[in-house]
Amino acid sequence: MSDETEIVTLLENWAEAVRARDMERILAHHGADMLMFDVPEPLFSRGMDEYRATWDLFFQYSPGGPRSFDLRDIAVTADGSVAFATAFIHIFDNPLRLTVGLRKEAGQWLIVHEHHSYAMKSDG
Amino acid sequence: MSDETEIVTLLENWAEAVRARDMERILAHHGADMLMFDVPEPLFSRGMDEYRATWDLFFQYSPGGPRSFDLRDIAVTADGSVAFATAFIHIFDNPLRLTVGLRKEAGQWLIVHEHHSYAMKSDG
Repeated sequence: MSDETEIVTLLENWAEAVRARDMERILAHHGADMLMFDVPEPLFSRGMDEYRATWDLFFQYSPGGPRSFDLRDIAVTADGSVAFATAFIHIFDNPLRLTVGLRKEAGQWLIVHEHHSYAMKSDG
Repeated sequence: MSDETEIVTLLENWAEAVRARDMERILAHHGADMLMFDVPEPLFSRGMDEYRATWDLFFQYSPGGPRSFDLRDIAVTADGSVAFATAFIHIFDNPLRLTVGLRKEAGQWLIVHEHHSYAMKSDG
């Protein structure tokens, strides 16, 4: 399997885990030093305890589970042991922008950075 | 020079070009297929004409030039011909989160993706 295919599969499985509210699977392929830029404050979160807390908050605001958490237009750039990927997350009405940074460790791709954001409305 | 040092220098020069409002230098080290996730709408911009337009908009809203556009906590992960970097941009009151994706082409690192966002206020 190419690095690109492997990473697309990893991201699709992660999104499926979010839809299933399966916290263990959401966290299963991340590096211990994970740096999270989430939609709401705080400015950033570092490490897996704080990353898990961002999902606790997310599920708290969508108690029945999100209707959808679908990745579209996944684009992966990979070489050696480093990769990044971009995608759009379709979840509520507005698509969310996603950038992911990955590192290959012991032959396994791990997410070490996520950046989630909405584009701000310019008309206020 | 290591890839990490080279990329930190590239990013510092880019930030210096923004402070100087020097459009040619801002655009000097980007790939033609540049994918921009900017703070305001649109959802994304693609290619150098659209990337340039995001800076036209930025300077339009800071006519005297930004007082500061300082990168802090730059962290680079690079291997082979792919890299990503994270940083915070100090510009107005709130720090901005920055993720950058890069590709090495003909021995030169080029920015092919930028993701800029503010963390949304949760008490807003």
